[in-house]
Amino acid sequence: MMAVEIERKYLVNSDQFKALSHKATRITQGYLNSDKARTVRVRIMGNQGFLTIKGLSDQAGLSRFEWEKEISVSEAQALLKLCESGVIDKTRYLVEFQQQVFEVDEFYGDNQGLIVAELELATEQQAVSKPDWLGDEVTGDNRYYNSTLMKIPYSQWA
Amino acid sequence: MMAVEIERKYLVNSDQFKALSHKATRITQGYLNSDKARTVRVRIMGNQGFLTIKGLSDQAGLSRFEWEKEISVSEAQALLKLCESGVIDKTRYLVEFQQQVFEVDEFYGDNQGLIVAELELATEQQAVSKPDWLGDEVTGDNRYYNSTLMKIPYSQWA
Repeated sequence: MMAVEIERKYLVNSDQFKALSHKATRITQGYLNSDKARTVRVRIMGNQGFLTIKGLSDQAGLSRFEWEKEISVSEAQALLKLCESGVIDKTRYLVEFQQQVFEVDEFYGDNQGLIVAELELATEQQAVSKPDWLGDEVTGDNRYYNSTLMKIPYSQWA
Repeated sequence: MMAVEIERKYLVNSDQFKALSHKATRITQGYLNSDKARTVRVRIMGNQGFLTIKGLSDQAGLSRFEWEKEISVSEAQALLKLCESGVIDKTRYLVEFQQQVFEVDEFYGDNQGLIVAELELATEQQAVSKPDWLGDEVTGDNRYYNSTLMKIPYSQWA
């Protein structure tokens, strides 16, 4: 899969979304490179492994080149051992709201307390219908990149 | 492919090997990470693309964890655009000698003048039969890593 992704990212201001979720998956991921210009991510998601490469996002932080290949969990485990220190551990909830599917990530460990929601869009102009539990938009804010959270986790924010 | 590679590397002291080669392939490669602890290499080799991830080698520089997946040339071209600056350009000659196949790399550009031969071994103890054109062994010498040659090319050596 090779594509340009268009996404908006929001904070989440209540636990309401959990009752509305139809799927929850534990995700563990590390980085072979956490540089935003050439991010190389290793992820284990349920019983699947993935290797994902992303480039810089555009100025608005909405679009970003992304290349992804599924790999086996044993390959992902071997590659995680090579990763930079700091691993991201979270549960991803899928939550439908008015024909949209939000990906809501609840973080653990050093990022405990942080919950963010992402919505993939077909175009940069596409309107978003916002549920009550959705908070401020943080699209393009580098602090919320997983590759940044690994190095400057939420628990260390001022 | 996920394996531990055992290799010996040598300098090449004459052009003799070219007449003995049965195959020559142009290789262009870049790095999404040139860190030796987690090298991520993008390579175009003839009409094939590859993504290769390597870990640290052992103390003798003989064995190194390696993971490789074939990708399309168009994927490799897109990923090369994200790579660190500095690209390696070389021709790889395959040269048989006494049931061994040497991979001989002749470099161009900033590494013009450098020719190295590599031989993959089944065990660290395996004996090597050396042809006349083979020079000093440089196994484990970091200067000859392609990921180092990209940053400190042969033309800049003292």
